[in-house]
Amino acid sequence: MSHISVGVEYGLHCLLHLSGPPTGVEVASVRNLAELQGVSVDYVAKLFTKLGKAGLTVSTEGKNGGFRLAKPANEITVLDVVNAIDGVKPLFECREIRTRCAVFDGQAPRWATAGVCSIHAVMLDAEKRMREALASQTLADIAARTGAKAPRSYGNHVVRWMQSRTTPS
Amino acid sequence: MSHISVGVEYGLHCLLHLSGPPTGVEVASVRNLAELQGVSVDYVAKLFTKLGKAGLTVSTEGKNGGFRLAKPANEITVLDVVNAIDGVKPLFECREIRTRCAVFDGQAPRWATAGVCSIHAVMLDAEKRMREALASQTLADIAARTGAKAPRSYGNHVVRWMQSRTTPS
Repeated sequence: MSHISVGVEYGLHCLLHLSGPPTGVEVASVRNLAELQGVSVDYVAKLFTKLGKAGLTVSTEGKNGGFRLAKPANEITVLDVVNAIDGVKPLFECREIRTRCAVFDGQAPRWATAGVCSIHAVMLDAEKRMREALASQTLADIAARTGAKAPRSYGNHVVRWMQSRTTPS
Repeated sequence: MSHISVGVEYGLHCLLHLSGPPTGVEVASVRNLAELQGVSVDYVAKLFTKLGKAGLTVSTEGKNGGFRLAKPANEITVLDVVNAIDGVKPLFECREIRTRCAVFDGQAPRWATAGVCSIHAVMLDAEKRMREALASQTLADIAARTGAKAPRSYGNHVVRWMQSRTTPS
């Protein structure tokens, strides 16, 4: 399994569909979002439980209720979505091998355990760079790139598709 | 399991022990490196098979033979070791969800599949930043930081420990 899960990919696609015009809508049901992507309603519901707990989405009331973004699309970063769906997973888990070197005879001296292990420090820096890159891109940035590629009719098509599945009042 | 495995941690510790003075030696047997770190000989042997295939270590001849670095410690990066032990693993595997959007009715138009998916592009940039950070640090850099922390006696201690396990001629 890759470090960033397929759940993040579906979560991002759901949130992009909720990022408003020109390629998205403002509110959608879990059922519609699931059907739109060809996955189960349960699967998408679990993603929205995580996205809601992370404060990225809120549920809306009413018979046509569903979910909407809890804040503007330019305030939700890819890192927010990764953390919401996958949790804050370390890139590397240091086993503190340095403390177990046989020459220490089971009693690692203070200098050997002080501060962060030099290997771990390199991994933490790499993780920081990765997270900075994920934090530098918002839903609005990605939606703008999709919007620039897609013909105007695509957004209308998605909106009509969503509306055609909404119970008429 | 974290993205960068515990094998990388042991591999880096082995290579640091082979990075020469003041805190390492030039040549060591797999048995000594395994005992020094309290892990099995088989485990370390498997790491050295991978390190050797990647051109980072070479075996030495003779009854006191073992392994040494295939190039100077300042030419072996942490990324080299990660790639050697874990392989070149992507941070994220794009499932090309964009092509399966229900509004396309099973026939995604060319604009929707052209180029790299906008979500994947963000992940690829994050991976690039991570790899750049790992590539910016060499064994020599880490050894220098350990050397700066350790008392002079540590290097001598490691060398004596290694020599005490070498078959006398």
